[in-house]
Amino acid sequence: MSNLLSFFIPKEKKFFSMFEKASLNLVDISKLLVEMVKTSSIEERKRLRNEIENLEHVGDSITHDILNQLSLSFITPFDREDIHQLAVVLDDIADYINGVSSRIIIYKIEPSDITPEVVKLAELILRCTEELHIAVEQLRDLRNVEKINEAYVRINSIENHADDIFDMAIGKLFDEEKDPIKLIKMKELYATLETATDKAEDAADIIKSIQVKNA
Amino acid sequence: MSNLLSFFIPKEKKFFSMFEKASLNLVDISKLLVEMVKTSSIEERKRLRNEIENLEHVGDSITHDILNQLSLSFITPFDREDIHQLAVVLDDIADYINGVSSRIIIYKIEPSDITPEVVKLAELILRCTEELHIAVEQLRDLRNVEKINEAYVRINSIENHADDIFDMAIGKLFDEEKDPIKLIKMKELYATLETATDKAEDAADIIKSIQVKNA
Amino acid sequence: MSNLLSFFIPKEKKFFSMFEKASLNLVDISKLLVEMVKTSSIEERKRLRNEIENLEHVGDSITHDILNQLSLSFITPFDREDIHQLAVVLDDIADYINGVSSRIIIYKIEPSDITPEVVKLAELILRCTEELHIAVEQLRDLRNVEKINEAYVRINSIENHADDIFDMAIGKLFDEEKDPIKLIKMKELYATLETATDKAEDAADIIKSIQVKNA
Repeated sequence: MSNLLSFFIPKEKKFFSMFEKASLNLVDISKLLVEMVKTSSIEERKRLRNEIENLEHVGDSITHDILNQLSLSFITPFDREDIHQLAVVLDDIADYINGVSSRIIIYKIEPSDITPEVVKLAELILRCTEELHIAVEQLRDLRNVEKINEAYVRINSIENHADDIFDMAIGKLFDEEKDPIKLIKMKELYATLETATDKAEDAADIIKSIQVKNA
Repeated sequence: MSNLLSFFIPKEKKFFSMFEKASLNLVDISKLLVEMVKTSSIEERKRLRNEIENLEHVGDSITHDILNQLSLSFITPFDREDIHQLAVVLDDIADYINGVSSRIIIYKIEPSDITPEVVKLAELILRCTEELHIAVEQLRDLRNVEKINEAYVRINSIENHADDIFDMAIGKLFDEEKDPIKLIKMKELYATLETATDKAEDAADIIKSIQVKNA
Repeated sequence: MSNLLSFFIPKEKKFFSMFEKASLNLVDISKLLVEMVKTSSIEERKRLRNEIENLEHVGDSITHDILNQLSLSFITPFDREDIHQLAVVLDDIADYINGVSSRIIIYKIEPSDITPEVVKLAELILRCTEELHIAVEQLRDLRNVEKINEAYVRINSIENHADDIFDMAIGKLFDEEKDPIKLIKMKELYATLETATDKAEDAADIIKSIQVKNA
């Protein structure tokens, strides 16, 4: 029934470009985060933190636009709930990336405290968002089962890798850091980085499930 | 099809009043929490903590009633899943508020350790639950798009404000608190307060999405 | 309509046995965890940790099989989204149990640091997974409202009990532990144990909601 209808009525194409804007924004934010954890200039860091915050607000308004469009659309390219959920989880990813950068500033984490594991995790977040952007682009034509599956598998494997890095970093932290307050700061920084990759996996799960339902 | 049916069959109205009971209960619990963080009397605190715990149990049984009614109802005013989800998230909010009050007692946080930020966050939780109650009341007539939207926007803005207060409080905590165990306690207290506002935002998201699907 | 169809077309029975494999695997992992927190042999611990990790990988591939089967199945015994969600949350439970065992190793928590509360929480996780397995077995015939309800109620009550144990353990920890780094480790261990029971409750919620929708 709904298949017949959707055959005759042009679908709301706007969602695709809005989601692509959201996922591309995540790639941009992630690039800034990688820059931020690599720079040793305090000035540059603050500038990057502000840029990340700005892009997080850009993400907020994209999310808002998607949800607004949803309330105005009679026909949607896939389930209303899935559009809602995907918008929310992409927003979450931006929140966690922003959370990493704001914690670096709020906790006054020195450039010299940035470990190779922090840099690695930031790079894995960037790779996750790049794969996520590929997956989001496939939403326009859900018959691309292969491409979505590949991105899905890669995001899962990046997330597993991030888990391993996280475990190792935490092990090292508890072995070496004797200052409990510094330990708390770094532990939370690692956890926020790792949660960003978890949320990327959640987003991949939603896209996969949209594809499964609409294949 | 389901629209035609629902035109002739009277809807299960019971859910509306049960949800209103749940959201009103949240307003009551939040008021007690604000009182609790403002009092300097140890006796009064314990009394308030017990009252909060009692209302949390009241909330549990409202949740139980909603889920029970759901299993007995053939026709529901909106999607079964949404009723389920909304019941669960309202329950979560009560859990986190109760979590704040129980941590104050379990961690033996002195009245003198209660910062202006703790009080502010408790007040923001109260404002969130008041707005949530307004949104829940609109479920009876989902054509009130304006009112739901207004509550939705306000809850989001309160939650953003809570995020800022949280960040500032955490910054100050790491700057000033030299006792790591006290720092851990306060950090967790702030995080629990802030999560309560997050959950209120999740509840607003669900209500918004119910309205979107049923508009 | 879908009822008529489902009357004539044999349902995908594979899901039932895959879910039963997943929930039985959780019972097995939980048993290993109970053994692990009870042994005082460092060797035995490492062996058990590896076994838990192996079973967690087994769980991963069961999850993968379920999601794969989902993408291949035209007819499913209940909503595609519910199959997806249940698979994911069962996977989460395995992750948290594995998280407990890996933290014990990574944080170098000595057998002498394992408190009676850690053992109790591990035992409650085992009881949760046993009940969950009973609930999962009922998915084959959702008219067993009683049995699902009973398991649901018991899991909720076990989870409440775990909450109380958790609160007590945290209270004692803050009262007695003066080494902040050790306190952080134990606090996180308790929290991971407790989250495993939360996730079991989430799984019970999903099964309950499947039953409600399909009764």
